[in-house]
Amino acid sequence: MSEEQKEEPIILITNDDGITAPGIRNLVEAVKELGKVVVVAPDKPQSGMGHAITIGVPLRLNKVEDMFEGVESWQTSGTPVDCVKLAVDKILHRKPDICLSGINHGANHSINVIYSGTMSAAMEASIESIPSIGFSLLDYRFEADFTAARFYVHKIVKSLLQTKMHKHLLLNVNIPSVPLNEMAGIKVSKQAYAKYDEDFDERIDPHGKKYYWLTGEFKNFDTGEDTDVWALEHNYVSVVPVQFDLTNYQLKKELEKTWDVL
Amino acid sequence: MSEEQKEEPIILITNDDGITAPGIRNLVEAVKELGKVVVVAPDKPQSGMGHAITIGVPLRLNKVEDMFEGVESWQTSGTPVDCVKLAVDKILHRKPDICLSGINHGANHSINVIYSGTMSAAMEASIESIPSIGFSLLDYRFEADFTAARFYVHKIVKSLLQTKMHKHLLLNVNIPSVPLNEMAGIKVSKQAYAKYDEDFDERIDPHGKKYYWLTGEFKNFDTGEDTDVWALEHNYVSVVPVQFDLTNYQLKKELEKTWDVL
Repeated sequence: MSEEQKEEPIILITNDDGITAPGIRNLVEAVKELGKVVVVAPDKPQSGMGHAITIGVPLRLNKVEDMFEGVESWQTSGTPVDCVKLAVDKILHRKPDICLSGINHGANHSINVIYSGTMSAAMEASIESIPSIGFSLLDYRFEADFTAARFYVHKIVKSLLQTKMHKHLLLNVNIPSVPLNEMAGIKVSKQAYAKYDEDFDERIDPHGKKYYWLTGEFKNFDTGEDTDVWALEHNYVSVVPVQFDLTNYQLKKELEKTWDVL
Repeated sequence: MSEEQKEEPIILITNDDGITAPGIRNLVEAVKELGKVVVVAPDKPQSGMGHAITIGVPLRLNKVEDMFEGVESWQTSGTPVDCVKLAVDKILHRKPDICLSGINHGANHSINVIYSGTMSAAMEASIESIPSIGFSLLDYRFEADFTAARFYVHKIVKSLLQTKMHKHLLLNVNIPSVPLNEMAGIKVSKQAYAKYDEDFDERIDPHGKKYYWLTGEFKNFDTGEDTDVWALEHNYVSVVPVQFDLTNYQLKKELEKTWDVL
Protein backbone atom coordinates (compact mmCIF):
# COMPACT_ATOMS: atom_id res chain seq x y z
CA MET A 1 0.00 0.00 0.00
CA SER A 2 1.39 3.44 -0.91
CA GLU A 3 2.01 6.29 1.51
CA GLU A 4 -0.83 8.20 -0.03
CA GLN A 5 -3.33 5.41 0.63
CA LYS A 6 -2.18 5.16 4.22
CA GLU A 7 -2.84 8.86 4.71
CA GLU A 8 -6.20 8.89 2.95
CA PRO A 9 -8.34 5.95 4.06
CA ILE A 10 -11.10 4.86 1.69
CA ILE A 11 -14.50 5.11 3.35
CA LEU A 12 -17.34 3.21 1.68
CA ILE A 13 -20.79 4.56 2.57
CA THR A 14 -24.12 2.87 2.01
CA ASN A 15 -27.56 2.78 3.64
CA ASP A 16 -30.99 1.21 3.40
CA ASP A 17 -33.18 4.32 3.15
CA GLY A 18 -31.92 5.01 -0.38
CA ILE A 19 -29.37 7.46 -1.75
CA THR A 20 -31.70 10.47 -1.49
CA ALA A 21 -32.36 10.08 2.25
CA PRO A 22 -31.13 12.89 4.52
CA GLY A 23 -29.44 10.30 6.75
CA ILE A 24 -26.82 9.28 4.19
CA ARG A 25 -26.14 12.92 3.33
CA ASN A 26 -25.47 13.61 7.00
CA LEU A 27 -23.19 10.56 7.21
CA VAL A 28 -21.18 11.81 4.22
CA GLU A 29 -20.92 15.28 5.76
CA ALA A 30 -19.84 13.86 9.12
CA VAL A 31 -16.86 11.89 7.78
CA LYS A 32 -15.88 13.41 4.48
CA GLU A 33 -12.79 15.14 5.84
CA LEU A 34 -11.54 11.86 7.35
CA GLY A 35 -10.75 10.11 4.04
CA LYS A 36 -11.78 9.49 0.46
CA VAL A 37 -15.52 8.82 0.63
CA VAL A 38 -17.26 6.69 -2.01
CA VAL A 39 -21.05 6.27 -1.82
CA VAL A 40 -22.78 3.17 -3.22
CA ALA A 41 -26.42 3.09 -2.10
CA PRO A 42 -29.80 1.72 -3.16
CA ASP A 43 -31.81 3.80 -5.62
CA LYS A 44 -34.93 3.36 -3.45
CA PRO A 45 -35.79 2.71 0.22
CA GLN A 46 -34.97 -0.86 1.35
CA SER A 47 -36.03 -0.80 5.00
CA GLY A 48 -36.70 -4.18 6.58
CA MET A 49 -34.79 -6.00 3.85
CA GLY A 50 -32.67 -7.86 6.42
CA HIS A 51 -29.73 -9.63 4.84
CA ALA A 52 -31.53 -10.03 1.51
CA ILE A 53 -29.45 -10.45 -1.63
CA THR A 54 -30.62 -10.27 -5.22
CA ILE A 55 -30.35 -13.63 -6.97
CA GLY A 56 -33.27 -13.93 -9.38
CA VAL A 57 -32.99 -10.62 -11.21
CA PRO A 58 -29.96 -8.76 -12.59
CA LEU A 59 -28.71 -5.61 -10.92
CA ARG A 60 -28.26 -2.11 -12.28
CA LEU A 61 -25.43 0.16 -11.17
CA ASN A 62 -25.29 3.81 -12.22
CA LYS A 63 -22.98 6.67 -11.39
CA VAL A 64 -24.79 9.68 -9.94
CA GLU A 65 -23.38 13.13 -10.64
CA ASP A 66 -23.54 16.07 -8.23
CA MET A 67 -25.26 14.11 -5.49
CA PHE A 68 -22.72 14.85 -2.77
CA GLU A 69 -20.20 17.63 -3.43
CA GLY A 70 -16.81 16.20 -4.38
CA VAL A 71 -17.84 12.62 -3.52
CA GLU A 72 -17.99 9.77 -6.05
CA SER A 73 -21.51 8.34 -5.84
CA TRP A 74 -23.30 5.33 -7.32
CA GLN A 75 -26.83 4.03 -7.04
CA THR A 76 -27.91 0.41 -7.52
CA SER A 77 -31.20 -1.38 -8.01
CA GLY A 78 -30.16 -3.88 -5.32
CA THR A 79 -30.37 -4.29 -1.57
CA PRO A 80 -27.92 -2.76 0.94
CA VAL A 81 -25.97 -6.06 0.93
CA ASP A 82 -25.81 -6.00 -2.88
CA CYS A 83 -24.40 -2.45 -2.64
CA VAL A 84 -21.44 -3.59 -0.56
CA LYS A 85 -20.72 -6.53 -2.88
CA LEU A 86 -20.94 -4.32 -5.99
CA ALA A 87 -18.81 -1.58 -4.41
CA VAL A 88 -15.94 -3.93 -3.64
CA ASP A 89 -16.06 -5.95 -6.88
CA LYS A 90 -17.07 -3.39 -9.51
CA ILE A 91 -16.25 0.10 -8.21
CA LEU A 92 -13.36 0.11 -5.75
CA HIS A 93 -11.70 -3.10 -6.97
CA ARG A 94 -10.26 -3.36 -3.45
CA LYS A 95 -11.52 -3.46 0.11
CA PRO A 96 -12.21 -0.01 1.58
CA ASP A 97 -10.54 0.75 4.92
CA ILE A 98 -13.92 1.04 6.60
CA CYS A 99 -17.56 0.68 5.61
CA LEU A 100 -20.22 2.94 7.14
CA SER A 101 -23.94 2.32 6.77
CA GLY A 102 -26.69 4.81 7.56
CA ILE A 103 -27.47 7.09 9.17
CA ASN A 104 -30.70 5.12 9.41
CA HIS A 105 -33.94 7.02 9.95
CA GLY A 106 -35.13 5.08 13.00
CA ALA A 107 -33.76 2.78 15.70
CA ASN A 108 -31.90 -0.48 15.02
CA HIS A 109 -31.29 -1.47 18.63
CA SER A 110 -32.14 -4.78 20.33
CA ILE A 111 -33.60 -7.47 18.07
CA ASN A 112 -33.98 -4.97 15.20
CA VAL A 113 -30.33 -5.61 14.29
CA ILE A 114 -31.62 -8.78 12.60
CA TYR A 115 -34.25 -7.09 10.39
CA SER A 116 -32.17 -4.06 9.60
CA GLY A 117 -30.89 -3.45 6.08
CA THR A 118 -28.52 -0.85 7.56
CA MET A 119 -26.88 -3.42 9.80
CA SER A 120 -26.93 -6.14 7.14
CA ALA A 121 -24.86 -3.98 4.83
CA ALA A 122 -22.39 -3.42 7.67
CA MET A 123 -22.39 -7.15 8.47
CA GLU A 124 -21.73 -8.03 4.84
CA ALA A 125 -18.67 -5.77 4.91
CA SER A 126 -17.50 -7.36 8.16
CA ILE A 127 -17.84 -10.86 6.63
CA GLU A 128 -15.66 -9.58 3.79
CA SER A 129 -13.02 -8.53 6.34
CA ILE A 130 -13.86 -4.83 6.14
CA PRO A 131 -14.26 -3.09 9.53
CA SER A 132 -17.74 -1.70 9.55
CA ILE A 133 -20.26 0.40 11.46
CA GLY A 134 -24.00 0.85 11.13
CA PHE A 135 -25.43 4.14 12.43
CA SER A 136 -29.07 4.78 13.32
CA LEU A 137 -30.85 7.81 14.73
CA LEU A 138 -33.90 7.30 16.95
CA ASP A 139 -36.05 9.51 14.75
CA TYR A 140 -37.62 7.98 11.67
CA ARG A 141 -38.78 11.28 10.16
CA PHE A 142 -37.14 12.66 7.04
CA GLU A 143 -36.92 16.08 8.71
CA ALA A 144 -35.05 14.60 11.70
CA ASP A 145 -32.26 16.73 13.21
CA PHE A 146 -28.91 14.99 12.61
CA THR A 147 -26.72 17.65 14.27
CA ALA A 148 -25.81 15.65 17.37
CA ALA A 149 -25.65 12.43 15.35
CA ARG A 150 -23.07 13.97 13.00
CA PHE A 151 -20.93 14.97 16.00
CA TYR A 152 -20.84 11.42 17.39
CA VAL A 153 -20.41 9.75 13.99
CA HIS A 154 -17.37 11.93 13.35
CA LYS A 155 -15.94 11.25 16.81
CA ILE A 156 -16.38 7.47 16.56
CA VAL A 157 -15.10 7.06 12.99
CA LYS A 158 -12.11 9.34 13.60
CA SER A 159 -11.18 7.42 16.73
CA LEU A 160 -11.45 4.03 14.99
CA LEU A 161 -9.45 5.12 11.94
CA GLN A 162 -6.62 6.02 14.32
CA THR A 163 -6.52 2.53 15.86
CA LYS A 164 -5.67 -0.84 14.34
CA MET A 165 -9.16 -2.20 13.76
CA HIS A 166 -9.92 -5.94 13.80
CA LYS A 167 -10.76 -6.96 10.23
CA HIS A 168 -14.18 -8.27 11.31
CA LEU A 169 -14.95 -5.28 13.56
CA LEU A 170 -18.68 -4.65 13.39
CA LEU A 171 -20.50 -2.06 15.49
CA ASN A 172 -24.19 -1.26 15.79
CA VAL A 173 -24.38 2.40 16.82
CA ASN A 174 -27.73 3.89 17.82
CA ILE A 175 -28.04 7.59 18.61
CA PRO A 176 -30.74 9.15 20.80
CA SER A 177 -32.76 11.90 19.23
CA VAL A 178 -31.80 14.67 21.68
CA PRO A 179 -29.75 17.86 21.33
CA LEU A 180 -25.98 17.55 21.74
CA ASN A 181 -25.97 19.18 25.18
CA GLU A 182 -28.38 16.57 26.51
CA MET A 183 -26.27 13.59 25.37
CA ALA A 184 -24.81 11.49 28.19
CA GLY A 185 -21.86 10.17 26.14
CA ILE A 186 -21.05 6.84 24.50
CA LYS A 187 -21.79 3.46 26.11
CA VAL A 188 -20.65 0.03 24.89
CA SER A 189 -23.74 -2.16 25.31
CA LYS A 190 -25.21 -5.56 24.56
CA GLN A 191 -28.23 -6.31 22.40
CA ALA A 192 -31.38 -6.17 24.56
CA TYR A 193 -34.07 -8.80 24.35
CA ALA A 194 -36.65 -6.25 23.30
CA LYS A 195 -38.89 -6.65 20.30
CA TYR A 196 -42.10 -5.76 18.62
CA ASP A 197 -45.16 -7.53 19.89
CA GLU A 198 -46.63 -7.93 16.47
CA ASP A 199 -50.14 -7.88 15.28
CA PHE A 200 -51.74 -7.47 11.89
CA ASP A 201 -54.29 -4.87 10.96
CA GLU A 202 -56.90 -6.79 8.96
CA ARG A 203 -58.72 -4.86 6.21
CA ILE A 204 -61.01 -5.55 3.29
CA ASP A 205 -59.99 -4.39 -0.19
CA PRO A 206 -62.44 -2.80 -2.70
CA HIS A 207 -62.97 -6.28 -4.19
CA GLY A 208 -64.09 -7.76 -0.87
CA LYS A 209 -60.89 -9.65 -0.13
CA LYS A 210 -58.90 -9.52 3.10
CA TYR A 211 -55.44 -8.05 3.38
CA TYR A 212 -53.09 -7.43 6.30
CA TRP A 213 -50.75 -4.66 7.40
CA LEU A 214 -47.97 -5.60 9.80
CA THR A 215 -48.20 -3.48 12.94
CA GLY A 216 -47.08 -3.82 16.54
CA GLU A 217 -45.97 -2.31 19.81
CA PHE A 218 -42.35 -2.23 20.95
CA LYS A 219 -41.72 -3.97 24.26
CA ASN A 220 -38.55 -4.37 26.32
CA PHE A 221 -38.33 -7.72 28.11
CA ASP A 222 -34.76 -7.11 29.27
CA THR A 223 -34.20 -5.44 32.64
CA GLY A 224 -30.39 -5.29 32.35
CA GLU A 225 -28.59 -1.96 32.66
CA ASP A 226 -25.92 -3.07 30.18
CA THR A 227 -28.26 -3.16 27.17
CA ASP A 228 -28.61 -0.86 24.19
CA VAL A 229 -32.21 -0.06 25.13
CA TRP A 230 -31.15 1.04 28.63
CA ALA A 231 -28.31 3.16 27.25
CA LEU A 232 -30.60 4.91 24.77
CA GLU A 233 -33.28 5.53 27.39
CA HIS A 234 -30.58 7.30 29.41
CA ASN A 235 -29.47 9.46 26.45
CA TYR A 236 -26.28 7.53 25.75
CA VAL A 237 -25.09 6.76 22.24
CA SER A 238 -25.21 2.96 22.30
CA VAL A 239 -22.39 0.97 20.66
CA VAL A 240 -23.07 -2.79 20.40
CA PRO A 241 -20.18 -4.90 19.04
CA VAL A 242 -21.80 -7.45 16.71
CA GLN A 243 -20.64 -10.81 15.36
CA PHE A 244 -21.72 -12.90 12.38
CA ASP A 245 -20.90 -16.24 14.00
CA LEU A 246 -24.40 -17.20 15.15
CA THR A 247 -23.32 -20.46 16.81
CA ASN A 248 -24.84 -20.86 20.27
CA TYR A 249 -21.77 -22.43 21.91
CA GLN A 250 -23.46 -23.03 25.24
CA LEU A 251 -26.29 -24.99 23.64
CA LYS A 252 -23.73 -26.81 21.47
CA LYS A 253 -22.01 -28.07 24.62
CA GLU A 254 -25.31 -29.08 26.21
CA LEU A 255 -26.54 -30.95 23.14
CA GLU A 256 -23.26 -32.82 22.79
CA LYS A 257 -23.61 -33.98 26.38
CA THR A 258 -27.29 -34.76 26.63
CA TRP A 259 -28.90 -35.33 23.25
CA ASP A 260 -29.45 -39.05 22.83
CA VAL A 261 -30.26 -38.85 19.12
CA LEU A 262 -26.56 -38.41 18.26
CA MET B 1 -53.32 -26.69 28.35
CA SER B 2 -55.58 -29.72 27.93
CA GLU B 3 -54.44 -33.34 27.93
CA GLU B 4 -55.28 -33.57 24.27
CA GLN B 5 -52.98 -30.68 23.37
CA LYS B 6 -50.19 -32.21 25.41
CA GLU B 7 -50.51 -35.46 23.48
CA GLU B 8 -50.78 -33.82 20.05
CA PRO B 9 -48.14 -31.12 19.65
CA ILE B 10 -48.83 -28.40 17.11
CA ILE B 11 -46.12 -28.32 14.45
CA LEU B 12 -45.94 -25.17 12.32
CA ILE B 13 -44.23 -25.70 8.98
CA THR B 14 -42.93 -23.05 6.62
CA ASN B 15 -40.15 -22.65 4.05
CA ASP B 16 -38.58 -20.20 1.64
CA ASP B 17 -38.85 -22.15 -1.63
CA GLY B 18 -42.62 -21.66 -1.69
CA ILE B 19 -45.53 -23.93 -0.81
CA THR B 20 -45.26 -25.96 -4.04
CA ALA B 21 -41.62 -26.99 -3.52
CA PRO B 22 -40.93 -30.71 -3.03
CA GLY B 23 -38.87 -29.89 0.07
CA ILE B 24 -41.84 -28.70 2.15
CA ARG B 25 -43.91 -31.69 1.02
CA ASN B 26 -41.15 -34.00 2.25
CA LEU B 27 -40.97 -32.12 5.54
CA VAL B 28 -44.72 -32.53 6.05
CA GLU B 29 -44.49 -36.25 5.23
CA ALA B 30 -41.55 -36.70 7.60
CA VAL B 31 -43.30 -35.33 10.69
CA LYS B 32 -47.02 -35.57 10.09
CA GLU B 33 -47.51 -38.51 12.41
CA LEU B 34 -45.72 -36.65 15.24
CA GLY B 35 -48.42 -34.02 15.82
CA LYS B 36 -50.98 -31.70 14.30
CA VAL B 37 -49.19 -30.12 11.34
CA VAL B 38 -50.20 -26.67 10.03
CA VAL B 39 -48.46 -25.28 6.93
CA VAL B 40 -48.10 -21.52 6.36
CA ALA B 41 -45.71 -20.87 3.49
CA PRO B 42 -44.93 -18.27 0.83
CA ASP B 43 -46.91 -18.47 -2.43
CA LYS B 44 -43.67 -18.08 -4.43
CA PRO B 45 -39.94 -18.78 -3.98
CA GLN B 46 -38.22 -16.42 -1.51
CA SER B 47 -34.63 -17.67 -1.56
CA GLY B 48 -32.00 -15.21 -0.37
CA MET B 49 -34.59 -13.06 1.41
CA GLY B 50 -32.63 -13.14 4.66
CA HIS B 51 -34.66 -11.81 7.56
CA ALA B 52 -36.75 -9.56 5.32
CA ILE B 53 -40.19 -8.50 6.53
CA THR B 54 -42.94 -6.84 4.54
CA ILE B 55 -43.60 -3.30 5.73
CA GLY B 56 -44.48 -1.19 2.70
CA VAL B 57 -47.16 -3.38 1.11
CA PRO B 58 -50.06 -5.28 2.66
CA LEU B 59 -50.02 -9.06 2.87
CA ARG B 60 -52.40 -11.65 1.48
CA LEU B 61 -53.18 -14.88 3.30
CA ASN B 62 -55.22 -17.64 1.65
CA LYS B 63 -56.20 -21.12 2.71
CA VAL B 64 -55.11 -23.79 0.23
CA GLU B 65 -57.28 -26.88 -0.14
CA ASP B 66 -55.97 -30.37 -0.90
CA MET B 67 -52.32 -29.31 -0.91
CA PHE B 68 -51.15 -31.81 1.69
CA GLU B 69 -53.50 -34.66 2.57
CA GLY B 70 -55.22 -34.04 5.90
CA VAL B 71 -53.03 -31.01 6.69
CA GLU B 72 -54.36 -27.44 7.12
CA SER B 73 -52.40 -25.27 4.69
CA TRP B 74 -52.13 -21.55 3.98
CA GLN B 75 -50.13 -19.51 1.50
CA THR B 76 -49.09 -15.90 1.94
CA SER B 77 -47.73 -13.18 -0.33
CA GLY B 78 -45.06 -12.44 2.28
CA THR B 79 -41.58 -13.57 3.20
CA PRO B 80 -40.77 -16.63 5.35
CA VAL B 81 -40.58 -14.35 8.41
CA ASP B 82 -43.99 -12.88 7.57
CA CYS B 83 -45.36 -16.45 7.40
CA VAL B 84 -44.35 -17.18 10.98
CA LYS B 85 -45.81 -13.90 12.24
CA LEU B 86 -49.08 -14.45 10.36
CA ALA B 87 -49.33 -18.08 11.48
CA VAL B 88 -49.08 -17.21 15.17
CA ASP B 89 -51.28 -14.09 15.09
CA LYS B 90 -53.91 -14.92 12.49
CA ILE B 91 -54.14 -18.70 12.09
CA LEU B 92 -53.09 -20.59 15.23
CA HIS B 93 -53.89 -17.77 17.71
CA ARG B 94 -51.30 -19.44 19.97
CA LYS B 95 -47.66 -20.44 19.79
CA PRO B 96 -47.09 -23.81 18.12
CA ASP B 97 -45.03 -26.35 20.11
CA ILE B 98 -42.35 -26.32 17.45
CA CYS B 99 -41.70 -24.54 14.16
CA LEU B 100 -39.99 -26.36 11.29
CA SER B 101 -38.69 -24.59 8.20
CA GLY B 102 -37.65 -26.27 4.96
CA ILE B 103 -36.59 -28.70 3.73
CA ASN B 104 -34.57 -26.16 1.79
CA HIS B 105 -33.39 -27.09 -1.68
CA GLY B 106 -29.70 -26.34 -1.18
CA ALA B 107 -27.19 -25.84 1.65
CA ASN B 108 -27.57 -23.30 4.45
CA HIS B 109 -24.36 -24.11 6.31
CA SER B 110 -21.60 -21.70 7.36
CA ILE B 111 -22.22 -18.03 6.62
CA ASN B 112 -25.31 -18.88 4.54
CA VAL B 113 -27.34 -19.01 7.76
CA ILE B 114 -27.39 -15.21 7.51
CA TYR B 115 -28.81 -14.98 3.97
CA SER B 116 -31.19 -17.88 4.33
CA GLY B 117 -34.95 -17.33 4.31
CA THR B 118 -35.30 -20.86 5.69
CA MET B 119 -33.24 -20.03 8.76
CA SER B 120 -34.74 -16.57 9.16
CA ALA B 121 -38.20 -18.08 9.51
CA ALA B 122 -36.83 -20.44 12.15
CA MET B 123 -35.06 -17.57 13.89
CA GLU B 124 -38.25 -15.49 13.91
CA ALA B 125 -40.01 -18.36 15.69
CA SER B 126 -37.16 -18.65 18.18
CA ILE B 127 -37.36 -14.92 18.94
CA GLU B 128 -41.07 -15.47 19.60
CA SER B 129 -40.15 -18.20 22.13
CA ILE B 130 -41.08 -21.08 19.81
CA PRO B 131 -38.44 -23.86 19.61
CA SER B 132 -37.49 -24.05 15.98
CA ILE B 133 -35.45 -25.94 13.40
CA GLY B 134 -34.42 -25.11 9.85
CA PHE B 135 -33.67 -28.07 7.56
CA SER B 136 -31.67 -27.94 4.34
CA LEU B 137 -30.62 -30.63 1.88
CA LEU B 138 -27.36 -30.22 -0.01
CA ASP B 139 -29.09 -30.60 -3.37
CA TYR B 140 -30.73 -27.54 -4.89
CA ARG B 141 -32.55 -29.45 -7.65
CA PHE B 142 -36.33 -29.83 -7.57
CA GLU B 143 -35.92 -33.53 -8.37
CA ALA B 144 -33.59 -34.03 -5.36
CA ASP B 145 -33.99 -37.30 -3.42
CA PHE B 146 -35.30 -36.52 0.07
CA THR B 147 -35.47 -40.13 1.31
CA ALA B 148 -32.52 -39.95 3.71
CA ALA B 149 -33.43 -36.38 4.67
CA ARG B 150 -36.93 -37.49 5.71
CA PHE B 151 -35.42 -40.20 7.92
CA TYR B 152 -33.21 -37.73 9.82
CA VAL B 153 -35.87 -35.01 10.03
CA HIS B 154 -38.24 -37.51 11.63
CA LYS B 155 -35.57 -38.77 14.03
CA ILE B 156 -34.52 -35.28 15.15
CA VAL B 157 -38.03 -33.84 15.54
CA LYS B 158 -39.31 -36.93 17.37
CA SER B 159 -36.37 -36.81 19.76
CA LEU B 160 -36.81 -33.09 20.49
CA LEU B 161 -40.58 -33.35 21.02
CA GLN B 162 -39.84 -35.92 23.73
CA THR B 163 -37.53 -33.55 25.62
CA LYS B 164 -38.20 -30.27 27.40
CA MET B 165 -36.97 -27.84 24.75
CA HIS B 166 -35.56 -24.42 25.64
CA LYS B 167 -38.06 -21.81 24.42
CA HIS B 168 -35.43 -20.14 22.25
CA LEU B 169 -34.02 -23.44 20.91
CA LEU B 170 -32.91 -22.83 17.34
CA LEU B 171 -31.11 -25.41 15.21
CA ASN B 172 -29.65 -25.15 11.72
CA VAL B 173 -29.73 -28.69 10.31
CA ASN B 174 -27.99 -29.43 7.01
CA ILE B 175 -28.26 -32.86 5.42
CA PRO B 176 -25.73 -34.32 2.97
CA SER B 177 -27.13 -35.48 -0.34
CA VAL B 178 -26.13 -39.14 -0.04
CA PRO B 179 -28.16 -42.35 0.34
CA LEU B 180 -29.18 -43.36 3.87
CA ASN B 181 -26.64 -46.19 4.08
CA GLU B 182 -23.79 -43.79 3.38
CA MET B 183 -24.76 -41.33 6.16
CA ALA B 184 -22.23 -41.12 9.02
CA GLY B 185 -24.77 -40.00 11.64
CA ILE B 186 -25.57 -36.65 13.31
CA LYS B 187 -22.91 -34.18 14.47
CA VAL B 188 -23.42 -31.05 16.56
CA SER B 189 -21.22 -28.45 14.88
CA LYS B 190 -20.33 -24.79 14.81
CA GLN B 191 -20.84 -22.36 11.93
CA ALA B 192 -17.77 -22.47 9.66
CA TYR B 193 -16.16 -19.32 8.33
CA ALA B 194 -16.80 -20.36 4.75
CA LYS B 195 -18.44 -18.12 2.20
CA TYR B 196 -18.93 -17.28 -1.41
CA ASP B 197 -16.11 -15.40 -3.03
CA GLU B 198 -18.43 -13.18 -5.01
CA ASP B 199 -18.12 -11.72 -8.40
CA PHE B 200 -20.59 -10.22 -10.82
CA ASP B 201 -21.18 -11.31 -14.37
CA GLU B 202 -21.35 -8.06 -16.37
CA ARG B 203 -23.62 -8.08 -19.44
CA ILE B 204 -25.09 -5.60 -21.90
CA ASP B 205 -28.87 -5.48 -22.34
CA PRO B 206 -30.59 -5.10 -25.76
CA HIS B 207 -30.68 -1.33 -25.17
CA GLY B 208 -26.91 -1.09 -24.74
CA LYS B 209 -26.95 -0.68 -20.95
CA LYS B 210 -24.92 -2.72 -18.45
CA TYR B 211 -26.45 -5.11 -15.95
CA TYR B 212 -24.98 -7.53 -13.44
CA TRP B 213 -25.72 -11.06 -12.25
CA LEU B 214 -24.41 -12.05 -8.83
CA THR B 215 -22.19 -15.12 -9.12
CA GLY B 216 -19.35 -16.64 -7.10
CA GLU B 217 -17.36 -19.63 -5.90
CA PHE B 218 -17.81 -21.21 -2.48
CA LYS B 219 -14.65 -21.25 -0.37
CA ASN B 220 -13.98 -22.68 3.08
CA PHE B 221 -11.52 -20.58 5.08
CA ASP B 222 -12.07 -22.63 8.25
CA THR B 223 -9.80 -25.62 8.89
CA GLY B 224 -11.56 -26.72 12.11
CA GLU B 225 -12.97 -30.26 12.39
CA ASP B 226 -15.85 -29.05 14.56
CA THR B 227 -17.55 -27.04 11.80
CA ASP B 228 -20.69 -27.72 9.80
CA VAL B 229 -18.72 -27.74 6.54
CA TRP B 230 -16.37 -30.43 7.89
CA ALA B 231 -19.30 -32.53 9.17
CA LEU B 232 -21.11 -32.36 5.82
CA GLU B 233 -17.95 -33.20 3.87
CA HIS B 234 -17.74 -36.34 6.00
CA ASN B 235 -21.38 -37.31 5.35
CA TYR B 236 -22.66 -36.26 8.77
CA VAL B 237 -25.97 -34.49 9.24
CA SER B 238 -24.78 -31.19 10.72
CA VAL B 239 -26.72 -29.60 13.60
CA VAL B 240 -25.61 -26.06 14.51
CA PRO B 241 -27.31 -24.51 17.55
CA VAL B 242 -27.99 -20.88 16.61
CA GLN B 243 -28.63 -17.75 18.66
CA PHE B 244 -30.21 -14.41 17.83
CA ASP B 245 -28.15 -12.43 20.34
CA LEU B 246 -25.52 -11.06 17.96
CA THR B 247 -23.53 -9.25 20.66
CA ASN B 248 -19.80 -9.89 20.36
CA TYR B 249 -19.10 -10.10 24.10
CA GLN B 250 -15.35 -10.47 23.71
CA LEU B 251 -15.10 -7.29 21.65
CA LYS B 252 -17.46 -5.57 24.08
CA LYS B 253 -15.01 -6.28 26.91
CA GLU B 254 -12.04 -5.10 24.84
CA LEU B 255 -13.71 -1.86 23.77
CA GLU B 256 -14.76 -1.07 27.33
CA LYS B 257 -11.13 -1.43 28.40
CA THR B 258 -9.28 0.20 25.55
CA TRP B 259 -11.44 2.55 23.55
CA ASP B 260 -10.52 6.11 24.48
CA VAL B 261 -13.51 7.69 22.77
CA LEU B 262 -15.82 6.57 25.60
